[in-house]
Amino acid sequence: MTGEAQVETVTATTTARPDGRTIRVGIIGGSGYTGAELLRLAVGHPNLELVTVTSNSQAGKRLDKIHPHLRGAPDEVRALKTVPHDAATAADVDAVFLAVPHGRAMAIAPGFVERGIKVLDLSADFRLRDPAAYPEWYGAEHTAPGLLGGAAYGIAELHRAEYPGAALVSGAGCLATTAILSLMPLLRAGWVDTSRIVVDGKIGSSAAGVESNPGSHHPDRSRAIRPYSMTGHRHTAEIEQELTFDGPRPEVHMSAHGIELVRGILTTSQLFLTQEHRDATERDIWALYREAYGAEPFVRIVKERTGVHRTPDPRFLVGTNVCEVGFERDERSGRVVVIGALDNLTKGAAGAAVQNLNIVAGLPETTGLSTVGLYPAP
Amino acid sequence: MTGEAQVETVTATTTARPDGRTIRVGIIGGSGYTGAELLRLAVGHPNLELVTVTSNSQAGKRLDKIHPHLRGAPDEVRALKTVPHDAATAADVDAVFLAVPHGRAMAIAPGFVERGIKVLDLSADFRLRDPAAYPEWYGAEHTAPGLLGGAAYGIAELHRAEYPGAALVSGAGCLATTAILSLMPLLRAGWVDTSRIVVDGKIGSSAAGVESNPGSHHPDRSRAIRPYSMTGHRHTAEIEQELTFDGPRPEVHMSAHGIELVRGILTTSQLFLTQEHRDATERDIWALYREAYGAEPFVRIVKERTGVHRTPDPRFLVGTNVCEVGFERDERSGRVVVIGALDNLTKGAAGAAVQNLNIVAGLPETTGLSTVGLYPAP
Amino acid sequence: MTGEAQVETVTATTTARPDGRTIRVGIIGGSGYTGAELLRLAVGHPNLELVTVTSNSQAGKRLDKIHPHLRGAPDEVRALKTVPHDAATAADVDAVFLAVPHGRAMAIAPGFVERGIKVLDLSADFRLRDPAAYPEWYGAEHTAPGLLGGAAYGIAELHRAEYPGAALVSGAGCLATTAILSLMPLLRAGWVDTSRIVVDGKIGSSAAGVESNPGSHHPDRSRAIRPYSMTGHRHTAEIEQELTFDGPRPEVHMSAHGIELVRGILTTSQLFLTQEHRDATERDIWALYREAYGAEPFVRIVKERTGVHRTPDPRFLVGTNVCEVGFERDERSGRVVVIGALDNLTKGAAGAAVQNLNIVAGLPETTGLSTVGLYPAP
Amino acid sequence: MTGEAQVETVTATTTARPDGRTIRVGIIGGSGYTGAELLRLAVGHPNLELVTVTSNSQAGKRLDKIHPHLRGAPDEVRALKTVPHDAATAADVDAVFLAVPHGRAMAIAPGFVERGIKVLDLSADFRLRDPAAYPEWYGAEHTAPGLLGGAAYGIAELHRAEYPGAALVSGAGCLATTAILSLMPLLRAGWVDTSRIVVDGKIGSSAAGVESNPGSHHPDRSRAIRPYSMTGHRHTAEIEQELTFDGPRPEVHMSAHGIELVRGILTTSQLFLTQEHRDATERDIWALYREAYGAEPFVRIVKERTGVHRTPDPRFLVGTNVCEVGFERDERSGRVVVIGALDNLTKGAAGAAVQNLNIVAGLPETTGLSTVGLYPAP
Repeated sequence: MTGEAQVETVTATTTARPDGRTIRVGIIGGSGYTGAELLRLAVGHPNLELVTVTSNSQAGKRLDKIHPHLRGAPDEVRALKTVPHDAATAADVDAVFLAVPHGRAMAIAPGFVERGIKVLDLSADFRLRDPAAYPEWYGAEHTAPGLLGGAAYGIAELHRAEYPGAALVSGAGCLATTAILSLMPLLRAGWVDTSRIVVDGKIGSSAAGVESNPGSHHPDRSRAIRPYSMTGHRHTAEIEQELTFDGPRPEVHMSAHGIELVRGILTTSQLFLTQEHRDATERDIWALYREAYGAEPFVRIVKERTGVHRTPDPRFLVGTNVCEVGFERDERSGRVVVIGALDNLTKGAAGAAVQNLNIVAGLPETTGLSTVGLYPAP
Repeated sequence: MTGEAQVETVTATTTARPDGRTIRVGIIGGSGYTGAELLRLAVGHPNLELVTVTSNSQAGKRLDKIHPHLRGAPDEVRALKTVPHDAATAADVDAVFLAVPHGRAMAIAPGFVERGIKVLDLSADFRLRDPAAYPEWYGAEHTAPGLLGGAAYGIAELHRAEYPGAALVSGAGCLATTAILSLMPLLRAGWVDTSRIVVDGKIGSSAAGVESNPGSHHPDRSRAIRPYSMTGHRHTAEIEQELTFDGPRPEVHMSAHGIELVRGILTTSQLFLTQEHRDATERDIWALYREAYGAEPFVRIVKERTGVHRTPDPRFLVGTNVCEVGFERDERSGRVVVIGALDNLTKGAAGAAVQNLNIVAGLPETTGLSTVGLYPAP
Repeated sequence: MTGEAQVETVTATTTARPDGRTIRVGIIGGSGYTGAELLRLAVGHPNLELVTVTSNSQAGKRLDKIHPHLRGAPDEVRALKTVPHDAATAADVDAVFLAVPHGRAMAIAPGFVERGIKVLDLSADFRLRDPAAYPEWYGAEHTAPGLLGGAAYGIAELHRAEYPGAALVSGAGCLATTAILSLMPLLRAGWVDTSRIVVDGKIGSSAAGVESNPGSHHPDRSRAIRPYSMTGHRHTAEIEQELTFDGPRPEVHMSAHGIELVRGILTTSQLFLTQEHRDATERDIWALYREAYGAEPFVRIVKERTGVHRTPDPRFLVGTNVCEVGFERDERSGRVVVIGALDNLTKGAAGAAVQNLNIVAGLPETTGLSTVGLYPAP
Repeated sequence: MTGEAQVETVTATTTARPDGRTIRVGIIGGSGYTGAELLRLAVGHPNLELVTVTSNSQAGKRLDKIHPHLRGAPDEVRALKTVPHDAATAADVDAVFLAVPHGRAMAIAPGFVERGIKVLDLSADFRLRDPAAYPEWYGAEHTAPGLLGGAAYGIAELHRAEYPGAALVSGAGCLATTAILSLMPLLRAGWVDTSRIVVDGKIGSSAAGVESNPGSHHPDRSRAIRPYSMTGHRHTAEIEQELTFDGPRPEVHMSAHGIELVRGILTTSQLFLTQEHRDATERDIWALYREAYGAEPFVRIVKERTGVHRTPDPRFLVGTNVCEVGFERDERSGRVVVIGALDNLTKGAAGAAVQNLNIVAGLPETTGLSTVGLYPAP
């Protein structure tokens, strides 16, 4: 959350930004929810200058007429009018965020890449390395397979070293990010039987986007605990890709559920230790997580022994770029239960993209991103 | 839900009940949420006469001052005052419902059994057959182990044949009922690898009872998706017990979550088919479920191909005695995802107890119980 | 809520209904939310036989494919297929419920009236006595003004004496019913300054109907406290009409708000006593309400001094045909605060229509209607 | 919302704050919800240095063990341990926030005032100018009446000019702030009949504080629309005080309702224009509001003609220091409906206190405060 006060600060420091730099950015697809969140983050970011925002469905409208939270943004943002996507192709920008539907980003990205503009994608179009995976999981051939080799997968905690050489940085699925970050330490260590990893995902309604439909109708969606993609969830592909280390590709069995939440994800994963590591204690596992995330600004281990707030909780992460991870060792068996939580629009989408841009642009990785949420949660 | 009109019907038929019979009942522990639900069902049941209701914490209060829904009950119920538990020991009743905390039912039940009064327990005290399981799962020795042999486990769909000879009918855990009924057909058929059954439970706040505490405080509990008993959930013991058929005891790995719901449970279970049954199709599985539940009045298979309401949904089961079950076969692997849903206070507690009493008393099993919920759900 | 058990009872009594009578009914407009509630009530009503259900938008579909709660209805209801409205005009029925949009009922009703079929309207088309009020409040001329004289306004507590001679019984607005029933005793007594009656209405999302739209989109509608019709709410017309007694027509100033609820209404009204009655005490006001509603089965005065449940509460009225009313006298001024609550789909629509049919058909007024809700509320 | 990134910025600018100044602050009462919000704002404020935080109920605990959102705060805040209130009396601070219960602040404040420490109160203890009002509205004599004359009422938009000479700046009630800011322009202009101002307040559960009780128990509080203080609400006193301009003290008739929201208030007020101003148009009223608030950074007029977001909405103000106001003129009568909205913990408490401190300390008024909320709202 950013505001006029911070905007003043921004204004005040325009002539003297922390590192003296301005990144001129465009948002391609600014009328959806990830666009709304990108705009919020851009307003609060000291180094970003918002040059253009596009929308085909709401072209020509002022931003504060599209997004009610921008009523409090500085006038130059409030009054900015969206232009159609095509109008942005020649914009004088250093970087673009692509917040467009799957299938569309692969059509748009090449033009920007060719012009040397940094591309931060939020769609699914560049997440999978294997071109053959797109028809399998997304039902259509990839139309820009040449870019796949130069794309880095957009979870900085795993791939930031690749960003400098990358032509673009992909998005990462919101459920996928939660699952990957929470499971990675145990998988990377090779302690887990990779043949049966179960992930139960719970997700808020904003993940389904800004368009109303019978499934989002309040009398039916309210208080729902609604299974969807019980099998075959598309994020499975990127989770398996990213959790493949030295051994075989793991088999991830995910089921997702819409829950009574607007922003937020919680994943509950069930892992079984290999025979070799069957005796691993909670302390041992803790050490793995500390090693993986001790220095990460945006991954937090949550595991309290007392009180109400013992486990990762998406409600306290709203608007932050933090992924919380936690776990519990089952003493009766070789099981470990792993919990992950984040805000699907921030760390699960727009926040991660800003984090990625910070790295690409050589700014401190945490610039303009928050780690302190709201308590009590709204 | 029952009302004055139905009460009129009841009154009208008092002299000529459907089968000419009246069962005089007592509710031991009437001030909690399961007590509230038992009272609602008793008001609408044509054969039950409410003789006594006890409460130690709210002794001497009129029922309509304890439970706001009873403001609409007939005067003889509204104005009934609770008595302390001890005052009920000599009540002239045919049957008692025990809606008291775990540990207390085992102290109270023997007295009623000795007097030949039918006992419908709602606690955990008589669910496990093995006396040694109580210290393991509930942390204390069983004080009436002699009754365990004569207790039938209270899921009628599995054990109704044992009821006539049973000294008492136990309760069944609400999460356990959902898991057991949804998993039973596949387990009984022996199609499932029993070594790694994963159950992810989601449950409303009423399951934690009527007493307020920091965990139930609205600003913290609202919109929660809160893991609890990630390992070691007590209902695991009865699920494993009840899902043991010809083969070895299955290993059930359950994690539970409090969700933004007051009444309702949804379980998502992940099963893996044995090598032998790896080729089972959805049609094959459907046949198993039809065979198991086709004649059951209170178990419904829900599996739609289109629309918003494709899977079991606890919201439309509120106040009904129905458990909905559904499943999806993963075509990529040997996995089957199984969904179960019910109202934890009705089919998960009070409704099941009334169903059990109907059987014990020789009434039609469905008497006084509902299968049509509310849509749109409140 | 009704169920298989009750259905069994119904079946059992088909040959011997309480009064030996069967009313053959049709539901014109069965695919919306009031249709869903009418169907639920019809299933549980011992004297109703459901002959035909119409829907233009979902013609030809089985009822249990339209409404998920009917999955538990008896087979003859579950499997009933809707027909287009026109196909019902010649149906052999004793009575029809019109659950169609405003403007449409006035086109359909005359045909049924001419055939001597009892019409229970749920729309706004016959609520106002003055034909000139329709263009003013609903923006169109009335097309069947000849029927207005023979229409009784559908709040039985005020108009049941007129029903026997009426050609049809109108619907009553859900917010209007809440306001009228809660305010009537004070207005009828003439104790209130009628020049400035303020009504603040709060209402759940089901009142806006079954069709999704941007205003019903879950991420935006969730947790809303959204003012709408702050001035000019259409129900104002019928409230003013029905609260006109000996004196001048009162001026009712209503503002409505969508709240986080699916089913339910609460109205908070601010009244100011006339100089003559300025000294009226809470006891005096209580006497007025007792006199008005002491014998009414479906209006309940709620005014507790202690506990959490002191005032009318729509959550405990879900699915019941009850309107709760309460009040508080402001000792600092001549003000009285009046609260009303009900379920907009039951007492605010379908339940009231069934109550009206019971009267019209000479059945006990409470037949098939409930007064005991759910606690804890779902 | 502030975070590690911003904290870095803070750290980075510690040696070069915007105006080179550091305000050393203490929070007296840091374990409640307003304390939690003060801490969040303090972490993100570039000029505040948190010296001490007190709590009697949770003395000696680390802040991040009390408040889950502070897990993401910088280490010096996370690890700070609370001390008992008494231990703070000699703290070396420039200013203190008093976030203690009513009655307690009047005991604590004098000690700080005497030492020349700026006091920003959040309690009700210094809101009313007339000492006789405290026994009337709060049931007890004021124990520091000598301080009342030197206290400025803490709504900066009305009283900021008094702050420099004030010994302390009081809190302002959260409902009172919403009502006062939304009604002020019309009242100050003298256009309104002050004899019957009706305010209907809707408020989230966080306003009742951090302690659980039967009224906050989730199964009962969830989805509530619960009237409370229907008459005699304590904030009435300060609303009437602050809306008294040239004419007589207005009569404010308020009723409050708990709603399904954690953070947020919406007030709906019904005003009637005087005969003289009966012809005022929406345009005229708009001019009054523009004049009053056009230059205010934290009051925003919201009045859209189209779309879903036409009126003030507390959901998009969560965590911001903004109060939104809007209105609608009733063309049928002399009525004006006025809407106000804010976050009770921010603009209704902690944010307003920070705004007040900024003024007192001579900082830009908007420092460290946000005007851009979250959309979609969590």
